[in-house]
Amino acid sequence: RTLRIGLIPGDGIGKEVIPAGRRLLESLPASLNLKFEFLDLYAGFETFERTGAALPEATVVALQSACDGALFGAVSSPSSAVRGYSSPIVALRKKLDLYANVRPVKSVRSPGAKQIDMVIVRENTEDLYVKEEKTYDTPQGKVAEAIKRISQRASSRIATMAGEIALRRQKIRKAGGTSIHASPLVTITHKSNVLSQTDGLFRTTAREALATARFVDGGVAVEEQIVDSMVYKLFRQPEAYDVIVAPNLYGDILSDGAAALVGSLGLVPSANVGEGFAIGEPCHGSAPDIMGQGIANPIATLRSAALMLEFLDEEEAAARIYAAVDANLEEGRLLSPDLGGTAKTEEVVEDILRRL
Amino acid sequence: RTLRIGLIPGDGIGKEVIPAGRRLLESLPASLNLKFEFLDLYAGFETFERTGAALPEATVVALQSACDGALFGAVSSPSSAVRGYSSPIVALRKKLDLYANVRPVKSVRSPGAKQIDMVIVRENTEDLYVKEEKTYDTPQGKVAEAIKRISQRASSRIATMAGEIALRRQKIRKAGGTSIHASPLVTITHKSNVLSQTDGLFRTTAREALATARFVDGGVAVEEQIVDSMVYKLFRQPEAYDVIVAPNLYGDILSDGAAALVGSLGLVPSANVGEGFAIGEPCHGSAPDIMGQGIANPIATLRSAALMLEFLDEEEAAARIYAAVDANLEEGRLLSPDLGGTAKTEEVVEDILRRL
Ligand SMILES: CC(C)[C@H](C(=O)O)[C@@H](O)C(=O)O
Ligand SMILES: CC(C)[C@H](C(=O)O)[C@@H](O)C(=O)O
Repeated sequence: RTLRIGLIPGDGIGKEVIPAGRRLLESLPASLNLKFEFLDLYAGFETFERTGAALPEATVVALQSACDGALFGAVSSPSSAVRGYSSPIVALRKKLDLYANVRPVKSVRSPGAKQIDMVIVRENTEDLYVKEEKTYDTPQGKVAEAIKRISQRASSRIATMAGEIALRRQKIRKAGGTSIHASPLVTITHKSNVLSQTDGLFRTTAREALATARFVDGGVAVEEQIVDSMVYKLFRQPEAYDVIVAPNLYGDILSDGAAALVGSLGLVPSANVGEGFAIGEPCHGSAPDIMGQGIANPIATLRSAALMLEFLDEEEAAARIYAAVDANLEEGRLLSPDLGGTAKTEEVVEDILRRL
Repeated sequence: RTLRIGLIPGDGIGKEVIPAGRRLLESLPASLNLKFEFLDLYAGFETFERTGAALPEATVVALQSACDGALFGAVSSPSSAVRGYSSPIVALRKKLDLYANVRPVKSVRSPGAKQIDMVIVRENTEDLYVKEEKTYDTPQGKVAEAIKRISQRASSRIATMAGEIALRRQKIRKAGGTSIHASPLVTITHKSNVLSQTDGLFRTTAREALATARFVDGGVAVEEQIVDSMVYKLFRQPEAYDVIVAPNLYGDILSDGAAALVGSLGLVPSANVGEGFAIGEPCHGSAPDIMGQGIANPIATLRSAALMLEFLDEEEAAARIYAAVDANLEEGRLLSPDLGGTAKTEEVVEDILRRL
């Protein structure tokens, strides 16, 4: 099988980690029978400055018509509002209807430390990210309003995705042996004590989607946490969580919080997933402070490539990558500076490739 | 001076901690020349079930016409939407225009551990808490929308409050000696990379309010953090933060996150502050799981009483309470179960009172 993968480095360290993702895919063992074709595509703040568009139409069309999946690096946000600029990744998610943002957060096995192994399943197309805002003048000064939109349709499909991921994780655990979770659990996060209609709709719809026979028979337990208390519990008992499903903004916040627990944003991957299409994207940003030094942690991107492959049904290839990354981390000899090591991006990549 | 204080226990452990707050105020040393009169007032889910109103008009009127300040315990949220019920504390904040929610989070001094000493200053009247929601049907199912409203006026006054608190903390530090912060810092939290108009307005307005001579001359430094990255940093470098100012919802989430860092929500106080009026309120909820056992941690409430006194210009009384609580925690002999101890609410209160 040949997979056509769009490569969108974006800005800053995006340009250092996406090439690492490409090398990884090219280095997968021949026995997997996977071939790749790559398309170099553009988006980001530099692209905006050069062309006037942060997400050129050509990039969208190429993804839609010529790619099976993609890797997206990171984009810089201008330090103050720039007319006409708006985040290309948020736009891509909506244009390609990549309705789920899947973010697995896992700690390195180490004796004594708390084990963390959770997946945050973030709704990726609505909530405040619809970006419908307006500003008006009043005698007391300016007032701005934004719409938070929650639909039954999007809430239902994201909860269903969370349920499927819980089932899949349980299957892999049963096959693989050790795990900190005995049985699958989905935690629904919301703030329906204040937002009774919007978050209330998310909550009841998610509950309904997860109450279907498929999940009930599969043994998927369901619980809820109000978002503020979820952040509290995330830090106090992170080992308790398996799959967390949340509206867009809470998912954004929770995944950064969870990343802090495993030591570095540089470890945490994500996939933006739609019907038959997935974009792997490291959770970290463009990190202008370290760009150009060749010290960015490539692991979030390598894991994002694996996650993309998983959603393109190449589970074996994905499992190889996860195992190679875990082996690198567990040995702990070649680590990038964000993890307290001194290894260059290049050296970390080499070490992982030879473990494939 | 005689202060008239409304007591609103609410539900669950609210009924165990508010009496502790009353005892504390009654036990302040006579040398402070402070007298108290107390009014018992009602609000909460039980009140709703009994009277049909979660926040009876009589409670609002009594607070407005006969009180200088109040202590609010906690209220239970019904486990699913109940027609006509909505949170009385959110309503109180708006009705009394208690525009600032001030939440100091401080770790117990202990060798080796990271020191945390920050105040979260949360806007308390708008954002998604305006609770303007609607639901409509579409061919694809229900859709619900909520308004997030941000005004220049509210953003400006909350940022000014944050600046004043930064100055006051610096003054107290200079007088008192040891501190982990060398100079005052205000961190503005927002998500203007997505919400360019609403959070953009919060950001620029807060920047402007903090750029006035009073704060610049006072040496108040100003920085910004996007809310997701703020949660990440909060957990990675909590010692770096002095005063954090945020719109309502982010402030809600950040304060629970910060509470996790100091070991228990049972330690974290808050004050809902308006012009010349303050309601002290522990950050924890009604904790139905432990109610009636007499083991609730009273410290969040005792510190909330102190915070209320601070905003009623009784700084000396407040300082006494803080010192007594700190002494109890530093000794670590009489701690409630949430802190790993076995002491009852009563015993913790006694220990703190004798240190006043
Ligand atoms: C860059 C920003 C628009 C984006 C988001 O909020 O989704 C980022 O934080 C993320 O999590 O991918
Ligand atoms: C109970 C709830 C409405 C409230 C809030 O969200 O403000 C609580 O979480 C708080 O922080 O005081």
